Amino acid sequence: MKWEGRRRRALLKLKEDIESGKVDNDILWLLNIINSRKEYYTTSSCSGRIQVAVTELPGEKGVMRVIAKWHHPIKVSYLLLVLDSCTEENIWFAVHPPIIHVMCRDVDSAIKLLKIVRDNGFKHSGIQGVTPDRVAIEVAASDKIEAPLRLRGNEIVPRDRLGFLVEAANRVLLRGKRRLELLGEAFSKL
Amino acid sequence: MKWEGRRRRALLKLKEDIESGKVDNDILWLLNIINSRKEYYTTSSCSGRIQVAVTELPGEKGVMRVIAKWHHPIKVSYLLLVLDSCTEENIWFAVHPPIIHVMCRDVDSAIKLLKIVRDNGFKHSGIQGVTPDRVAIEVAASDKIEAPLRLRGNEIVPRDRLGFLVEAANRVLLRGKRRLELLGEAFSKL
Repeated sequence: MKWEGRRRRALLKLKEDIESGKVDNDILWLLNIINSRKEYYTTSSCSGRIQVAVTELPGEKGVMRVIAKWHHPIKVSYLLLVLDSCTEENIWFAVHPPIIHVMCRDVDSAIKLLKIVRDNGFKHSGIQGVTPDRVAIEVAASDKIEAPLRLRGNEIVPRDRLGFLVEAANRVLLRGKRRLELLGEAFSKL
Repeated sequence: MKWEGRRRRALLKLKEDIESGKVDNDILWLLNIINSRKEYYTTSSCSGRIQVAVTELPGEKGVMRVIAKWHHPIKVSYLLLVLDSCTEENIWFAVHPPIIHVMCRDVDSAIKLLKIVRDNGFKHSGIQGVTPDRVAIEVAASDKIEAPLRLRGNEIVPRDRLGFLVEAANRVLLRGKRRLELLGEAFSKL
Protein backbone atom coordinates (compact mmCIF):
# COMPACT_ATOMS: atom_id res chain seq x y z
CA MET A 1 0.00 0.00 0.00
CA LYS A 2 1.19 3.52 -0.78
CA TRP A 3 1.98 6.16 1.86
CA GLU A 4 -1.38 7.93 1.41
CA GLY A 5 -3.34 4.70 1.88
CA ARG A 6 -1.43 3.69 5.03
CA ARG A 7 -1.80 7.18 6.42
CA ARG A 8 -5.55 7.19 5.77
CA ARG A 9 -5.91 3.79 7.43
CA ALA A 10 -3.91 4.91 10.50
CA LEU A 11 -6.01 8.06 10.91
CA LEU A 12 -9.20 6.00 10.62
CA LYS A 13 -7.92 3.64 13.32
CA LEU A 14 -7.12 6.67 15.52
CA LYS A 15 -10.67 7.96 15.00
CA GLU A 16 -12.08 4.60 16.13
CA ASP A 17 -9.77 4.53 19.16
CA ILE A 18 -10.91 8.04 20.12
CA GLU A 19 -14.57 7.04 19.83
CA SER A 20 -14.05 4.00 22.04
CA GLY A 21 -12.25 6.14 24.63
CA LYS A 22 -8.83 4.56 24.14
CA VAL A 23 -6.93 7.81 23.57
CA ASP A 24 -5.92 10.02 26.46
CA ASN A 25 -7.30 13.56 26.21
CA ASP A 26 -4.00 14.97 27.49
CA ILE A 27 -2.34 14.06 24.19
CA LEU A 28 -5.13 13.96 21.60
CA TRP A 29 -4.79 17.65 20.67
CA LEU A 30 -1.08 17.12 19.93
CA LEU A 31 -1.74 14.02 17.83
CA ASN A 32 -4.19 16.15 15.82
CA ILE A 33 -1.52 18.79 15.18
CA ILE A 34 1.00 16.17 14.00
CA ASN A 35 -1.59 14.34 11.91
CA SER A 36 -2.68 17.59 10.21
CA ARG A 37 0.56 17.41 8.20
CA LYS A 38 0.52 15.18 5.13
CA GLU A 39 4.09 13.94 5.70
CA TYR A 40 3.33 12.44 9.15
CA TYR A 41 0.91 10.14 10.93
CA THR A 42 0.87 8.81 14.48
CA THR A 43 0.50 5.09 15.18
CA SER A 44 0.39 4.97 18.99
CA SER A 45 0.84 7.24 21.97
CA CYS A 46 0.74 7.63 25.73
CA SER A 47 0.56 10.98 27.55
CA GLY A 48 2.67 9.63 30.39
CA ARG A 49 1.53 7.37 33.21
CA ILE A 50 2.03 6.09 36.72
CA GLN A 51 1.86 2.32 36.93
CA VAL A 52 2.20 -0.63 39.31
CA ALA A 53 3.41 -3.94 37.88
CA VAL A 54 4.09 -7.46 39.07
CA THR A 55 7.58 -8.44 37.95
CA GLU A 56 10.80 -9.69 39.54
CA LEU A 57 12.85 -7.04 37.76
CA PRO A 58 11.77 -4.01 35.72
CA GLY A 59 12.04 -4.15 31.94
CA GLU A 60 11.01 -7.81 31.62
CA LYS A 61 8.70 -7.29 28.66
CA GLY A 62 6.26 -10.14 28.12
CA VAL A 63 6.75 -11.29 31.71
CA MET A 64 5.68 -8.26 33.71
CA ARG A 65 1.98 -7.80 34.40
CA VAL A 66 0.59 -4.27 34.90
CA ILE A 67 -1.95 -4.35 37.74
CA ALA A 68 -2.78 -0.62 37.91
CA LYS A 69 -2.15 2.48 35.83
CA TRP A 70 -3.17 6.10 35.87
CA HIS A 71 -2.65 8.92 33.38
CA HIS A 72 -3.11 11.55 36.11
CA PRO A 73 -1.61 12.32 39.55
CA ILE A 74 -2.50 9.77 42.22
CA LYS A 75 -3.06 9.61 45.97
CA VAL A 76 -1.38 7.28 48.49
CA SER A 77 -4.75 5.59 49.04
CA TYR A 78 -4.70 4.37 45.41
CA LEU A 79 -1.39 2.63 46.02
CA LEU A 80 -2.51 1.12 49.33
CA LEU A 81 -5.57 -0.35 47.62
CA VAL A 82 -3.37 -2.01 45.01
CA LEU A 83 -0.83 -3.26 47.56
CA ASP A 84 -3.51 -4.67 49.84
CA SER A 85 -5.24 -6.51 47.04
CA CYS A 86 -2.09 -8.04 45.58
CA THR A 87 -0.36 -11.01 47.19
CA GLU A 88 2.50 -11.23 44.65
CA GLU A 89 6.06 -11.29 45.99
CA ASN A 90 7.52 -8.64 43.66
CA ILE A 91 5.86 -5.33 42.83
CA TRP A 92 7.41 -2.35 41.02
CA PHE A 93 6.15 1.22 40.81
CA ALA A 94 6.88 3.34 37.75
CA VAL A 95 6.36 6.70 36.10
CA HIS A 96 6.66 6.57 32.31
CA PRO A 97 7.19 9.67 30.17
CA PRO A 98 4.92 10.71 27.28
CA ILE A 99 5.63 8.68 24.13
CA ILE A 100 4.38 9.14 20.56
CA HIS A 101 5.19 6.87 17.62
CA VAL A 102 5.19 8.81 14.35
CA MET A 103 5.60 7.57 10.78
CA CYS A 104 7.31 10.03 8.45
CA ARG A 105 7.13 10.00 4.66
CA ASP A 106 10.88 10.20 4.12
CA VAL A 107 14.21 10.80 5.83
CA ASP A 108 14.00 14.58 5.30
CA SER A 109 10.63 14.94 7.03
CA ALA A 110 11.89 12.61 9.80
CA ILE A 111 14.98 14.77 10.40
CA LYS A 112 12.76 17.87 10.61
CA LEU A 113 10.46 16.24 13.19
CA LEU A 114 13.40 14.85 15.15
CA LYS A 115 14.96 18.28 15.48
CA ILE A 116 11.74 19.87 16.79
CA VAL A 117 11.08 17.18 19.38
CA ARG A 118 14.67 16.93 20.61
CA ASP A 119 14.92 20.73 20.89
CA ASN A 120 11.75 20.73 23.00
CA GLY A 121 12.64 18.38 25.82
CA PHE A 122 11.98 14.97 24.23
CA LYS A 123 15.57 13.87 24.63
CA HIS A 124 14.93 10.14 24.26
CA SER A 125 13.58 10.54 20.73
CA GLY A 126 15.10 8.80 17.75
CA ILE A 127 14.54 7.21 14.37
CA GLN A 128 13.90 3.52 15.08
CA GLY A 129 13.51 2.15 11.60
CA VAL A 130 13.91 3.22 7.98
CA THR A 131 12.34 1.52 4.96
CA PRO A 132 12.16 2.94 1.43
CA ASP A 133 8.57 4.10 1.98
CA ARG A 134 8.54 5.31 5.60
CA VAL A 135 10.65 6.33 8.57
CA ALA A 136 9.53 5.42 12.11
CA ILE A 137 10.26 7.83 14.97
CA GLU A 138 9.73 7.33 18.68
CA VAL A 139 9.15 10.67 20.38
CA ALA A 140 9.92 10.20 24.07
CA ALA A 141 10.89 12.29 27.06
CA SER A 142 13.20 10.92 29.76
CA ASP A 143 11.04 11.60 32.84
CA LYS A 144 11.16 8.24 34.56
CA ILE A 145 10.86 6.52 37.93
CA GLU A 146 11.27 2.74 38.36
CA ALA A 147 11.23 1.79 42.04
CA PRO A 148 10.45 -1.43 43.92
CA LEU A 149 7.50 -1.47 46.34
CA ARG A 150 7.83 -5.13 47.34
CA LEU A 151 10.71 -7.57 46.75
CA ARG A 152 10.71 -11.25 47.78
CA GLY A 153 7.59 -10.50 49.80
CA ASN A 154 9.18 -7.61 51.76
CA GLU A 155 7.82 -4.06 51.73
CA ILE A 156 10.64 -1.87 50.37
CA VAL A 157 8.93 1.47 50.99
CA PRO A 158 7.18 1.61 54.39
CA ARG A 159 3.56 2.76 54.23
CA ASP A 160 4.25 5.97 56.12
CA ARG A 161 6.82 6.90 53.45
CA LEU A 162 4.66 6.23 50.40
CA GLY A 163 3.46 9.85 50.47
CA PHE A 164 6.94 11.10 49.58
CA LEU A 165 7.22 8.65 46.68
CA VAL A 166 3.75 9.59 45.40
CA GLU A 167 4.56 13.30 45.59
CA ALA A 168 7.75 12.82 43.55
CA ALA A 169 5.91 10.57 41.06
CA ASN A 170 3.14 13.12 40.52
CA ARG A 171 5.69 15.87 39.92
CA VAL A 172 7.64 13.75 37.40
CA LEU A 173 4.37 12.82 35.64
CA LEU A 174 3.24 16.45 35.38
CA ARG A 175 6.69 17.58 34.19
CA GLY A 176 6.33 15.11 31.32
CA LYS A 177 2.86 16.37 30.48
CA ARG A 178 4.08 19.97 30.45
CA ARG A 179 6.62 18.92 27.80
CA LEU A 180 3.69 17.95 25.57
CA GLU A 181 2.39 21.53 25.79
CA LEU A 182 5.79 22.98 24.91
CA LEU A 183 6.06 20.62 21.96
CA GLY A 184 2.60 21.64 20.76
CA GLU A 185 3.60 25.31 20.88
CA ALA A 186 6.78 24.58 18.90
CA PHE A 187 4.74 22.75 16.25
CA SER A 188 2.25 25.60 15.98
CA LYS A 189 5.06 28.07 15.29
CA LEU A 190 6.24 26.08 12.25
CA MET B 1 36.79 18.17 8.14
CA LYS B 2 36.04 15.08 6.08
CA TRP B 3 34.66 11.80 7.50
CA GLU B 4 38.08 10.09 7.52
CA GLY B 5 39.67 12.97 9.44
CA ARG B 6 36.93 13.12 12.05
CA ARG B 7 37.05 9.35 12.45
CA ARG B 8 40.82 9.37 12.90
CA ARG B 9 40.56 12.14 15.49
CA ALA B 10 37.83 10.26 17.42
CA LEU B 11 39.87 7.04 17.48
CA LEU B 12 42.92 8.97 18.69
CA LYS B 13 40.84 10.51 21.49
CA LEU B 14 39.59 7.02 22.43
CA LYS B 15 43.18 5.77 22.55
CA GLU B 16 44.10 8.61 24.94
CA ASP B 17 41.03 7.91 27.09
CA ILE B 18 41.99 4.22 27.30
CA GLU B 19 45.55 5.11 28.33
CA SER B 20 44.31 7.42 31.08
CA GLY B 21 41.94 4.71 32.34
CA LYS B 22 38.72 6.50 31.40
CA VAL B 23 37.20 3.64 29.41
CA ASP B 24 35.49 0.74 31.15
CA ASN B 25 37.04 -2.66 30.30
CA ASP B 26 33.57 -4.21 30.15
CA ILE B 27 32.86 -2.33 26.93
CA LEU B 28 36.26 -1.63 25.35
CA TRP B 29 36.35 -4.89 23.36
CA LEU B 30 32.98 -4.02 21.80
CA LEU B 31 34.09 -0.47 20.93
CA ASN B 32 37.08 -2.04 19.17
CA ILE B 33 34.80 -4.26 17.08
CA ILE B 34 32.61 -1.30 16.05
CA ASN B 35 35.62 0.93 15.38
CA SER B 36 37.27 -1.74 13.19
CA ARG B 37 34.71 -0.85 10.49
CA LYS B 38 35.51 2.16 8.34
CA GLU B 39 31.89 3.33 8.21
CA TYR B 40 31.58 3.76 12.00
CA TYR B 41 33.29 5.34 14.97
CA THR B 42 32.28 5.59 18.62
CA THR B 43 32.29 8.94 20.42
CA SER B 44 31.33 7.96 23.98
CA SER B 45 30.16 4.96 25.95
CA CYS B 46 29.21 3.50 29.31
CA SER B 47 29.01 -0.23 30.06
CA GLY B 48 26.14 0.35 32.47
CA ARG B 49 26.35 1.66 36.01
CA ILE B 50 24.83 1.92 39.45
CA GLN B 51 24.78 5.47 40.77
CA VAL B 52 23.67 7.62 43.68
CA ALA B 53 22.77 11.24 43.00
CA VAL B 54 21.63 14.31 44.90
CA THR B 55 18.56 15.70 43.16
CA GLU B 56 14.98 16.59 44.07
CA LEU B 57 13.62 14.65 41.10
CA PRO B 58 15.35 12.28 38.67
CA GLY B 59 16.14 13.52 35.18
CA GLU B 60 17.07 17.06 36.22
CA LYS B 61 20.15 17.32 34.03
CA GLY B 62 22.51 20.09 35.01
CA VAL B 63 20.98 20.19 38.49
CA MET B 64 21.59 16.67 39.76
CA ARG B 65 24.95 15.86 41.31
CA VAL B 66 26.31 12.30 41.15
CA ILE B 67 27.93 11.45 44.50
CA ALA B 68 28.84 7.80 43.82
CA LYS B 69 28.96 5.47 40.85
CA TRP B 70 30.07 1.92 40.15
CA HIS B 71 30.38 -0.05 36.91
CA HIS B 72 30.15 -3.35 38.79
CA PRO B 73 27.79 -5.02 41.30
CA ILE B 74 27.79 -3.37 44.72
CA LYS B 75 27.25 -4.30 48.37
CA VAL B 76 24.85 -2.72 50.85
CA SER B 77 27.83 -1.41 52.79
CA TYR B 78 28.77 0.80 49.81
CA LEU B 79 25.34 2.44 49.93
CA LEU B 80 25.42 2.89 53.70
CA LEU B 81 28.77 4.65 53.42
CA VAL B 82 27.33 7.08 50.87
CA LEU B 83 24.12 7.66 52.85
CA ASP B 84 25.98 8.25 56.10
CA SER B 85 28.36 10.75 54.56
CA CYS B 86 25.69 12.75 52.75
CA THR B 87 23.46 15.20 54.58
CA GLU B 88 21.43 16.26 51.53
CA GLU B 89 17.63 16.08 51.76
CA ASN B 90 17.00 14.28 48.47
CA ILE B 91 18.96 11.27 47.22
CA TRP B 92 18.12 8.99 44.29
CA PHE B 93 19.53 5.59 43.43
CA ALA B 94 19.77 4.46 39.80
CA VAL B 95 20.88 1.69 37.49
CA HIS B 96 21.66 2.90 33.98
CA PRO B 97 21.88 0.57 30.98
CA PRO B 98 24.90 0.30 28.68
CA ILE B 99 25.01 3.17 26.16
CA ILE B 100 27.22 3.69 23.11
CA HIS B 101 27.20 6.73 20.84
CA VAL B 102 28.18 5.82 17.29
CA MET B 103 28.75 8.03 14.26
CA CYS B 104 27.86 6.42 10.93
CA ARG B 105 29.10 7.55 7.53
CA ASP B 106 25.65 7.65 5.90
CA VAL B 107 22.01 6.73 6.37
CA ASP B 108 22.52 3.25 4.87
CA SER B 109 25.28 2.26 7.28
CA ALA B 110 23.20 3.75 10.13
CA ILE B 111 20.16 1.65 9.21
CA LYS B 112 22.36 -1.47 9.14
CA LEU B 113 23.77 -0.75 12.62
CA LEU B 114 20.35 0.16 13.99
CA LYS B 115 18.88 -3.16 12.89
CA ILE B 116 21.67 -5.18 14.53
CA VAL B 117 21.47 -3.38 17.87
CA ARG B 118 17.66 -3.33 18.04
CA ASP B 119 17.50 -7.04 17.15
CA ASN B 120 19.96 -7.79 19.98
CA GLY B 121 18.20 -6.30 22.98
CA PHE B 122 19.16 -2.62 22.66
CA LYS B 123 15.55 -1.53 22.34
CA HIS B 124 16.12 2.12 23.25
CA SER B 125 18.42 2.71 20.29
CA GLY B 126 17.73 5.26 17.62
CA ILE B 127 19.14 7.74 15.14
CA GLN B 128 19.40 11.02 17.02
CA GLY B 129 20.69 13.33 14.32
CA VAL B 130 21.38 13.36 10.60
CA THR B 131 23.65 15.78 8.76
CA PRO B 132 24.89 15.43 5.19
CA ASP B 133 28.22 14.01 6.36
CA ARG B 134 27.29 11.80 9.34
CA VAL B 135 24.47 10.07 11.18
CA ALA B 136 24.51 9.88 14.98
CA ILE B 137 23.10 6.79 16.70
CA GLU B 138 22.56 6.19 20.40
CA VAL B 139 22.78 2.49 21.17
CA ALA B 140 20.98 1.91 24.47
CA ALA B 141 19.29 -0.90 26.34
CA SER B 142 16.28 -0.27 28.56
CA ASP B 143 17.52 -1.88 31.79
CA LYS B 144 16.78 0.86 34.30
CA ILE B 145 16.05 1.53 37.95
CA GLU B 146 15.38 5.03 39.31
CA ALA B 147 14.34 4.90 42.96
CA PRO B 148 14.42 7.42 45.82
CA LEU B 149 16.56 6.63 48.87
CA ARG B 150 15.81 9.88 50.72
CA LEU B 151 13.11 12.51 50.08
CA ARG B 152 12.66 15.74 52.06
CA GLY B 153 15.10 14.31 54.59
CA ASN B 154 13.17 11.05 55.11
CA GLU B 155 14.62 7.60 54.46
CA ILE B 156 12.41 6.00 51.80
CA VAL B 157 14.01 2.56 51.91
CA PRO B 158 14.73 1.39 55.48
CA ARG B 159 18.28 0.17 56.01
CA ASP B 160 17.21 -3.42 56.63
CA ARG B 161 15.55 -3.44 53.19
CA LEU B 162 18.46 -2.01 51.20
CA GLY B 163 19.74 -5.55 50.57
CA PHE B 164 16.70 -6.35 48.42
CA LEU B 165 17.16 -3.18 46.39
CA VAL B 166 20.88 -3.84 45.92
CA GLU B 167 20.22 -7.43 44.80
CA ALA B 168 17.70 -6.23 42.18
CA ALA B 169 20.07 -3.46 41.06
CA ASN B 170 23.00 -5.86 40.63
CA ARG B 171 20.83 -8.22 38.57
CA VAL B 172 19.59 -5.39 36.31
CA LEU B 173 23.17 -4.13 35.89
CA LEU B 174 24.48 -7.58 34.93
CA ARG B 175 21.56 -8.18 32.56
CA GLY B 176 22.59 -5.02 30.73
CA LYS B 177 26.22 -6.12 30.58
CA ARG B 178 25.20 -9.52 29.17
CA ARG B 179 23.46 -7.65 26.34
CA LEU B 180 26.85 -6.20 25.39
CA GLU B 181 28.18 -9.74 24.93
CA LEU B 182 25.21 -10.75 22.76
CA LEU B 183 25.70 -7.62 20.67
CA GLY B 184 29.40 -8.40 20.22
CA GLU B 185 28.55 -11.91 19.01
CA ALA B 186 26.04 -10.52 16.52
CA PHE B 187 28.65 -8.10 15.18
CA SER B 188 31.24 -10.84 14.81
CA LYS B 189 28.84 -12.87 12.68
CA LEU B 190 28.46 -10.04 10.15
